[in-house]
Amino acid sequence: MNNDLERIKQDLAHNLFLKKCDETFLSTLAQDAQYQRFSKGKVLFLHEDEAERFYVVKKGWVKLFRETLDGHQAVIDILKAPHMIGETALFDDHEYSYSAEAIDDIELISLPLSALEKEIQSNGSVALAMLNSVARYKSLQEKEIEHRSLQNAAQRIGCFLLKLGHEHEGPKLKIQLPYDKTLIASRLGMQPETFSRALGKLKKAIPLDVHGSTIELESLDALIAYTCSACSSEYPCKTTKGCLTL
Amino acid sequence: MNNDLERIKQDLAHNLFLKKCDETFLSTLAQDAQYQRFSKGKVLFLHEDEAERFYVVKKGWVKLFRETLDGHQAVIDILKAPHMIGETALFDDHEYSYSAEAIDDIELISLPLSALEKEIQSNGSVALAMLNSVARYKSLQEKEIEHRSLQNAAQRIGCFLLKLGHEHEGPKLKIQLPYDKTLIASRLGMQPETFSRALGKLKKAIPLDVHGSTIELESLDALIAYTCSACSSEYPCKTTKGCLTL
Repeated sequence: MNNDLERIKQDLAHNLFLKKCDETFLSTLAQDAQYQRFSKGKVLFLHEDEAERFYVVKKGWVKLFRETLDGHQAVIDILKAPHMIGETALFDDHEYSYSAEAIDDIELISLPLSALEKEIQSNGSVALAMLNSVARYKSLQEKEIEHRSLQNAAQRIGCFLLKLGHEHEGPKLKIQLPYDKTLIASRLGMQPETFSRALGKLKKAIPLDVHGSTIELESLDALIAYTCSACSSEYPCKTTKGCLTL
Repeated sequence: MNNDLERIKQDLAHNLFLKKCDETFLSTLAQDAQYQRFSKGKVLFLHEDEAERFYVVKKGWVKLFRETLDGHQAVIDILKAPHMIGETALFDDHEYSYSAEAIDDIELISLPLSALEKEIQSNGSVALAMLNSVARYKSLQEKEIEHRSLQNAAQRIGCFLLKLGHEHEGPKLKIQLPYDKTLIASRLGMQPETFSRALGKLKKAIPLDVHGSTIELESLDALIAYTCSACSSEYPCKTTKGCLTL
């Protein structure tokens, strides 16, 4: 049993916010934690469901989305380990502000939201750590809104590739797309047809080969010059370095 | 002197976050607070400037924006009283994450960021109140990203009008646009030409008269039906009720 608790605490500490929380709180969380595995396509919860649990992604990708009254889907984000999901329901009348779906076979750690709520109310350092985490995410969303205003579709794809390739060194760069192109299009707020045309435009603008889900680049510099000219930050920026959302 | 301090504290308490902070902290803030007036067009600070002060808007509208390397401007938000500006620089290496400009004659209360930083680090209830504030704003940004993905330009204008008209009761509705149409277009992430075309489209879809900066609606219900069908929330939603960003 103790080994299990230790393993959960170690897994939780991969998350930057939880890493900053103290040992006692992590132990409390771990006692009521559950590992859960879900297959591709499983809906974890729905927008406006009453929220009792939050999650840390351990393996795989999770899509956060909302559906409009007329049946269209907006992808809010697509997250992987070690992101948290559903924790901000605490500030939304204890309702999830989005639906969540496994986009491949995933593993999660499910945690009690009530324990988190109690802790941020009584422990200032945990409230501060969570404030840091939410503010950082808000800052990435601001960048997203900026890009949706000013970057063309090809530049938005370019920025997505830069996030994937930011740790690369050397002249030639091979990037593996993390999930299928239709989903990347949704994540970037564009139709699949727009995505195809924009990828074509990007190929004309800079030397780039696409083979299925692999993209090869002659030069990262050319991609940076093309993409980041329509951005308020110089490369490498916090968005690409932090690689918090993809 | 004491009267001045009391007046500042009362003005600060219009802001929902500061209202939740305790008396002692508000007194500390008020001691180093300054009222400032600026004319239309005045830039308060620039993106990536070192941040030493944050502000509470007392009168007028302030545009938050970023400029890209190739010289275009993305409007992140346009805020009025009693919003705070610049406070999240605390989580961005003490640099402002946007530029701020007066879009009419404004009055602000300028406050020391160091006092806020000290307080959230030592006072859990202040950290929690700020967490609530940032999380609520993040939630509005999520809605913004959803709308940019799925609403057409006419529906985005419709949502903007609903925020302005949300407190209205009765059949006929007169809405005064708060600032000029070019700026509304920028706030909604569209070109002025797109805004004009979309307003024309909205006029065809629902009974609506535009006279300069005044818009008259026969029926709020028609606007709601047209706009909110492409949204994940039913009217009246938190965005329209909260009227936090316009």
